[in-house]
Amino acid sequence: MTAHFRRRMERAVAQAADAGLTGLLITPGPDLIYFTGYRPTAITERITMLVLDADHDPHLIVPVLERPDAVKAAGAGAVTITDWADGTDPYAAAAGLLDPKGRYAVSDNAWALHLLGLQEALPGSAYTSMTGSLPMLRAVKDTDEVDRLAAAGAAADAAYEQIVGVRFAGRTEHQVGTDLAALLVAHGHSQVDFTVVGSGPNGANPHHEMGERVIADGDMVVLDFGGLKDGYGSDTTRTVHVGEPTSLEREVFDVVREAQQAAFEAVRPGVPCEEIDRVARDVITRAGYGEYFIHRTGHGIGLTTHEPPYLVAGERRPLVPGMCFSIEPGIYLPGRFGVRIEDIVTVTADGGRRLNNTSHDLHIVA
Amino acid sequence: MTAHFRRRMERAVAQAADAGLTGLLITPGPDLIYFTGYRPTAITERITMLVLDADHDPHLIVPVLERPDAVKAAGAGAVTITDWADGTDPYAAAAGLLDPKGRYAVSDNAWALHLLGLQEALPGSAYTSMTGSLPMLRAVKDTDEVDRLAAAGAAADAAYEQIVGVRFAGRTEHQVGTDLAALLVAHGHSQVDFTVVGSGPNGANPHHEMGERVIADGDMVVLDFGGLKDGYGSDTTRTVHVGEPTSLEREVFDVVREAQQAAFEAVRPGVPCEEIDRVARDVITRAGYGEYFIHRTGHGIGLTTHEPPYLVAGERRPLVPGMCFSIEPGIYLPGRFGVRIEDIVTVTADGGRRLNNTSHDLHIVA
Repeated sequence: MTAHFRRRMERAVAQAADAGLTGLLITPGPDLIYFTGYRPTAITERITMLVLDADHDPHLIVPVLERPDAVKAAGAGAVTITDWADGTDPYAAAAGLLDPKGRYAVSDNAWALHLLGLQEALPGSAYTSMTGSLPMLRAVKDTDEVDRLAAAGAAADAAYEQIVGVRFAGRTEHQVGTDLAALLVAHGHSQVDFTVVGSGPNGANPHHEMGERVIADGDMVVLDFGGLKDGYGSDTTRTVHVGEPTSLEREVFDVVREAQQAAFEAVRPGVPCEEIDRVARDVITRAGYGEYFIHRTGHGIGLTTHEPPYLVAGERRPLVPGMCFSIEPGIYLPGRFGVRIEDIVTVTADGGRRLNNTSHDLHIVA
Repeated sequence: MTAHFRRRMERAVAQAADAGLTGLLITPGPDLIYFTGYRPTAITERITMLVLDADHDPHLIVPVLERPDAVKAAGAGAVTITDWADGTDPYAAAAGLLDPKGRYAVSDNAWALHLLGLQEALPGSAYTSMTGSLPMLRAVKDTDEVDRLAAAGAAADAAYEQIVGVRFAGRTEHQVGTDLAALLVAHGHSQVDFTVVGSGPNGANPHHEMGERVIADGDMVVLDFGGLKDGYGSDTTRTVHVGEPTSLEREVFDVVREAQQAAFEAVRPGVPCEEIDRVARDVITRAGYGEYFIHRTGHGIGLTTHEPPYLVAGERRPLVPGMCFSIEPGIYLPGRFGVRIEDIVTVTADGGRRLNNTSHDLHIVA
């Protein structure tokens, strides 16, 4: 494992140099897990930071009271661990490992508290966000990572196949969502991050989680669910209907399904990320619903459920084999209903491969 | 509720002006809950930010797809909500609400991604951390907040009274910790944040959570547990012993108990925070264990379990009635065992009041 983490760190340092950066500053969260396997029990006001640059061995700075946890991390053998104690200035300690005039990429989710501490300790240094400067750092997955994402997707699919068999009408969104969360766990998820059950008008709020609304016959219901299995994320959406849909509901559903399919078929190496968004959006706009598709078409997935690459207008970087992301167009009619269909897709040498494989037909539930 | 949130925002703006700041930039987490009651379902790469300054009404910037959630927040009536859409530049949008040469305090846990976006959009602006510039912003609790912290503490105490009745010897730390988490929920916690069960040598790691070690007769066991009840935190530690302690274990325990009591008795308005740390540390140092007390004496608690005031060397600000914090000295003998005793304490007009009230005697468990 030490060699595995060392290779990842060496590759990152080389990418940083290519981008004109002195190095990378990695804080707890998916970046730190990626490079060291270390996941502190909490992300706090006490700074933990991995310093990667070309001139030094990797250093992991930790609060002294967390050293016993840090030394047990899978990648601990690939880093030198330096600790600091409460009552001392951790930024002064960290600054000793940095180039006073260096330019560093910082983990997106690093706390402002810590970044400001470094900026003050080293006024001649400069910082840029990881997504701004090295967005593709973790975007291309290796075979093991794709396998884990596929396993997480298969588990989410199994949960979906079962949830459509439960009773919807007469039960609250919260009850159905609780069933769904239990199914994700039953199929091997260690953590459930979200279980959207958006029935009727609630489906028109893309991030509605689940509430006390009682689902009724005639409701469209958006089901968007995911979490972590074996460290990697799942994230899938299907929209189901209680009883027979109206012709408008059927029409909107078909537009979203067509948009999702067209975007999927556009996936191949070299295509700019924004092109996938454009293809999905064009289908929906041509059908007259463009103003009701109020979010980007997708986001990368890996150690976390939202990460680069983002499939959004303006993201011109090309798709590369091994990238994994959601394709999830939707139409949201305020006060009425919403429809979204989402699969995780990985880029292969000649196209895309879905990691979610349940039917895209409109499933009628009871 | 609107008036309640408005008063908090007005007070913050006045405090910022006193500190020479243009205003405050508040991002999701405890700060945003404090000022608006708004808790987005996740803290993500999409910026959500409350802008508070003296020249404008409070503005809450949200991703357009989260607007339906934001408008439902308890304090939504006290803010103007401005949204931004995927594919547009949210920092440019936010910059329009800021003074290009302003100086702002930023929530500690704001993502570096967002701070760097603002710094780039407004190169003439300046930023400082909330803890660095306005550390006491949420530190003095109002009566309702103290009542909620007291209720959370009482629930944690009830859980402790029951956990000492379960079997320890022959079961794993994980099993005892699972019991403890269930008890916190049974006593009204909505969320369990940590359940440290540090038996024998694991107790010497202050942040050890719980593992597969089987607890044995003769073990010291550190139990440190807490979470949220009704939005406010609990955090308490007791150290118990399986069977009869050795004279060394008894001695170390008594030193920690004396340190905790001395620190508690030093609490009164006007005393510098660092003085509480010094009092606890002096007791432990005089007993010859100073080098084994490897963390600060305490931290504030409220909407989150770690916040100012910090009881640490160098924190010279005075205690003020209404402040609530932990007092938690410990001694950690590597490879052998650890002892920590922790109560939440609130400052009253003439001293301190404990919000945890279970016995400090060394409890013998089976």
